[in-house]
Amino acid sequence: MNAQTLFVALDLAGVFACAISGATAALQRRLDLFGVVMVAFITAVGGGVVRDLCIGATPPVGLSDWSYLVTAVLAALLTIGAGPLVERLAYPVLLFDALGLSVFAVTGAHKALAYGHNYEVAILLGTTTAVGGGIARDVLLNRVPAILRKEIYATAALLGASILVLGEALGWSRNWLTWLAIAACFVLRLLSLRYGWHLRLNVAERR
Amino acid sequence: MNAQTLFVALDLAGVFACAISGATAALQRRLDLFGVVMVAFITAVGGGVVRDLCIGATPPVGLSDWSYLVTAVLAALLTIGAGPLVERLAYPVLLFDALGLSVFAVTGAHKALAYGHNYEVAILLGTTTAVGGGIARDVLLNRVPAILRKEIYATAALLGASILVLGEALGWSRNWLTWLAIAACFVLRLLSLRYGWHLRLNVAERR
Amino acid sequence: MNAQTLFVALDLAGVFACAISGATAALQRRLDLFGVVMVAFITAVGGGVVRDLCIGATPPVGLSDWSYLVTAVLAALLTIGAGPLVERLAYPVLLFDALGLSVFAVTGAHKALAYGHNYEVAILLGTTTAVGGGIARDVLLNRVPAILRKEIYATAALLGASILVLGEALGWSRNWLTWLAIAACFVLRLLSLRYGWHLRLNVAERR
Repeated sequence: MNAQTLFVALDLAGVFACAISGATAALQRRLDLFGVVMVAFITAVGGGVVRDLCIGATPPVGLSDWSYLVTAVLAALLTIGAGPLVERLAYPVLLFDALGLSVFAVTGAHKALAYGHNYEVAILLGTTTAVGGGIARDVLLNRVPAILRKEIYATAALLGASILVLGEALGWSRNWLTWLAIAACFVLRLLSLRYGWHLRLNVAERR
Repeated sequence: MNAQTLFVALDLAGVFACAISGATAALQRRLDLFGVVMVAFITAVGGGVVRDLCIGATPPVGLSDWSYLVTAVLAALLTIGAGPLVERLAYPVLLFDALGLSVFAVTGAHKALAYGHNYEVAILLGTTTAVGGGIARDVLLNRVPAILRKEIYATAALLGASILVLGEALGWSRNWLTWLAIAACFVLRLLSLRYGWHLRLNVAERR
Repeated sequence: MNAQTLFVALDLAGVFACAISGATAALQRRLDLFGVVMVAFITAVGGGVVRDLCIGATPPVGLSDWSYLVTAVLAALLTIGAGPLVERLAYPVLLFDALGLSVFAVTGAHKALAYGHNYEVAILLGTTTAVGGGIARDVLLNRVPAILRKEIYATAALLGASILVLGEALGWSRNWLTWLAIAACFVLRLLSLRYGWHLRLNVAERR
């Protein structure tokens, strides 16, 4: 398996994990079959669609590449049909999700640079690619986005996107830069899960 | 009345019905005059705006063609000023709404194809055209989108968009293909209303 | 200070005020550090991003011009770190916010015209520039957008955008037209705050 194939596999693993998180949340809200599949798909590709609209890449690849749709639909059907199995796989799903977060953030930032946009746009849209789907999921399901309230999630995506952009700005070799950025995001996310790191603010009481 | 005129009339009938549904829901949430008109307008053109952004057709026709705005504003004012009348017309409004759903799904899919995009994009964006406004309405009014929870609604739009795309892929004559696709969506929607068909999932209890 | 410098200063004052309103609302919902900063940023630039997507100006200037990001982040950090001070400044913040509303509505409408779009698009997108961020803030924080429920807010933006568009259509000198449109929006907003004007509808009881 060469690097490119590995990359596509990681990307689809991320789509799969995001779609499972979307379908699981949609089932809890008692959506119907179409609703569950749609929320799963939007959770998986929503961030990338916003990124593509913002960089002028129409149609968004999340809508035009059938592998995303098929992966998300399969993940949604698996979640519907084998709920207990998916629950037992909670830990692997978290790992896949952290992988997806990392891959989305880094490839999102790279794509914005490749379209000729500046560093700020690349960092913001890399982060958007990684967290946009999860935010869309929670908005559709009528709750405050979880990733804006707890855990180091968007922050890890910001770190990955920033390392990629910094490295490209300094002219580092893209071969290992991409993997470094992905690894940094992935490790930060796992450490924060393991040790319960967060960025919660303690201001509510004071005011 | 030739086919083109009939088509425009059906399209505006759909806009009218969607705007009434948006205004009615907004009144229940006690929005003010501007809020009711804005939610009615977004319900009517929101799906088409997303479609146009995704296919690179700027500005979205829902914003640049005054007939949509005027129709939506009239529908909102009618709903505000003649609520009891609108309630008595609930059944015609449902019919118009089903018509709008069908016309939006089929014309949305066709427009994506006309802009040179692939079949997947056309089917996804045809469906988005039909259901996007209703989802935006419910998100703005802070509730889980009704069409993701019950009844055959988005599924009917998916059917209409798919038939149009399949037919164009096979080179069928557009004259009757458009009407076939619209009719399929319309009939499925009406049958599901009549017989209470749905896609609800019975998984919540099991878990 | 010449007119252009004054204009940039007013624009950033508006960004600052919008970001404070976003951060304040996000703190009330107990978002974490990243969430508060992100909601502040989206409240400040969200309307302009939608406008830029709709007129085909990618990437949106809200994402590519660092002065917006820096201003919004500073406002968010100030709100987090000096909550009581910000609360004591509630009235200046309301003034800045009204300024931002006016500047956003008028510059948003002008930008749409400058991109060659028609009057309707310019008025709708000028209003969107002014109110889009506040709507995004409330949707993210899971509540019905306040500006659709009470006070003359979006209506003032609509007035400012309409005066700008009407004036440009009639070929008035842009030097004082811009200031006239901004002043009209600003004065209407302040008067409605001062005298409690609103557009509330009294239909709920009747039905």
